[in-house]
Amino acid sequence: MKLAMVNDKFVPIENLDPIYYDRGLYFGDGVYEVLRSYNGKLFALDEHMERFAASMAAIRITGVDIRDVRERVERAFKATGLPNVKIYCHVTRGSAPRNHVWDSHLKPNFLLIVSEVKDHPEEKARGIAVCTHPDLRWKRCDIKSLNLLPNVLARQYAFEKGCDEAILVNEAGYITEGTSSAFFGIARGALQTAPLSANILPSITRKFVVKAATNVGMPIEECCLTPKQAAAADELFLAVTTKDIVPVVKFDDATIGNGTPGPLTKALTTEFLKFTR
Amino acid sequence: MKLAMVNDKFVPIENLDPIYYDRGLYFGDGVYEVLRSYNGKLFALDEHMERFAASMAAIRITGVDIRDVRERVERAFKATGLPNVKIYCHVTRGSAPRNHVWDSHLKPNFLLIVSEVKDHPEEKARGIAVCTHPDLRWKRCDIKSLNLLPNVLARQYAFEKGCDEAILVNEAGYITEGTSSAFFGIARGALQTAPLSANILPSITRKFVVKAATNVGMPIEECCLTPKQAAAADELFLAVTTKDIVPVVKFDDATIGNGTPGPLTKALTTEFLKFTR
Repeated sequence: MKLAMVNDKFVPIENLDPIYYDRGLYFGDGVYEVLRSYNGKLFALDEHMERFAASMAAIRITGVDIRDVRERVERAFKATGLPNVKIYCHVTRGSAPRNHVWDSHLKPNFLLIVSEVKDHPEEKARGIAVCTHPDLRWKRCDIKSLNLLPNVLARQYAFEKGCDEAILVNEAGYITEGTSSAFFGIARGALQTAPLSANILPSITRKFVVKAATNVGMPIEECCLTPKQAAAADELFLAVTTKDIVPVVKFDDATIGNGTPGPLTKALTTEFLKFTR
Repeated sequence: MKLAMVNDKFVPIENLDPIYYDRGLYFGDGVYEVLRSYNGKLFALDEHMERFAASMAAIRITGVDIRDVRERVERAFKATGLPNVKIYCHVTRGSAPRNHVWDSHLKPNFLLIVSEVKDHPEEKARGIAVCTHPDLRWKRCDIKSLNLLPNVLARQYAFEKGCDEAILVNEAGYITEGTSSAFFGIARGALQTAPLSANILPSITRKFVVKAATNVGMPIEECCLTPKQAAAADELFLAVTTKDIVPVVKFDDATIGNGTPGPLTKALTTEFLKFTR
């Protein structure tokens, strides 16, 4: 005998939508992707599908054919008829009565939401402020999972300080990444970013930023920056799927450069946007 | 303009149940409790409600009166008419389009599921096997949050090894706790368990185990055990809300004691069960 209550009302257990048993809800037992289109063209679809498949494999969600996911993403994008959209999709391990151990026959649940994305040229022109926050996340941040509470708490902290992003600093005192962005510095003309590891998401935007840097002849230094080093950088920026490159002009209390987006960040943005055409 | 897809079908966004926008699903942005009854009486209701309120406060979910939660728990329990039930309930921050930053006016979502719980005397008589697994969880495991993917993965690992629980070992080489249990050793007649910290859930069953130990005159040593020390203990057991005390007779490859539940574990269980009457 089982009984459910949603808010303050009893609901016959057989009337509950399967999502009320979704392991995504009980455990965050799922993985997600966010991708966007530029002017009617999905950007880096191959890369996002590849990473999505890798995330599923990493947490051993089986039974999802990534080609079906790709087809759904493309169909949903087409159905909106909009040139610039953001597509969020996740796969959870499936719906079942709560139990840490999973049944290998579970059917994964797929959810996709498309919404229009607007660019914010004023943000790119002005730059944003960020602040540091301890990195409290789990030890497999290379998996794009639905366990995002530490990201949420850090981002909210930043928001309440008037900042647009929190930059996470690990126990060793090094910057890993933002709560939903990759973090970059520019010093002595070189691009600096943390090397990929189990603590950092293999950002697709990061990959294209590195490619853009190579194209413009900028040396790339994979290194872990301290907040002090970041505050002293010539330029800083974030890489985010939905916003590509976002210049950072304030890092905690430090003003970066002259307080406006730097020339190399602009050059990288111009180069990056060529990939999106 | 927004568009949603559930599995392979489009769903008009306005037809989506609010749970499809639940921040619990997107971020694990919520906290939960599990409690049980023994013979028609809810056990440690005050303590569970106190911890639930503390978890909500820790992640800053506001607008839930814990007295309402308590009333729902009691009402649902009564409605089942069953003497031995397990009650799972969670509160998420609410439903809203996905955004790390939350709207302070969000209305939290509450979900409760009651199911019958059966005791397993054979498990208590025989004891269980456990195995160690790296503790990959976030740095605030004192909060009973819905970010449980590392717990799920470790428990599944244990299950596939023929074990009933995974015992988590942190980077320093010390045992923290089980994936959904507190962990105890008995050596030289003393009860040993890790001190509470940001990395350990303040287990309510643990609290009553410590009280039981005090009642039977057993000294309590709060200390961090290594797997090697645990393997060499005279007795081992887990404390779990739904099962109170579960003897451990195998720890990785080591047989504990003579391979059957030890006398002090049994004495503690007898004493513990007095609290449940």
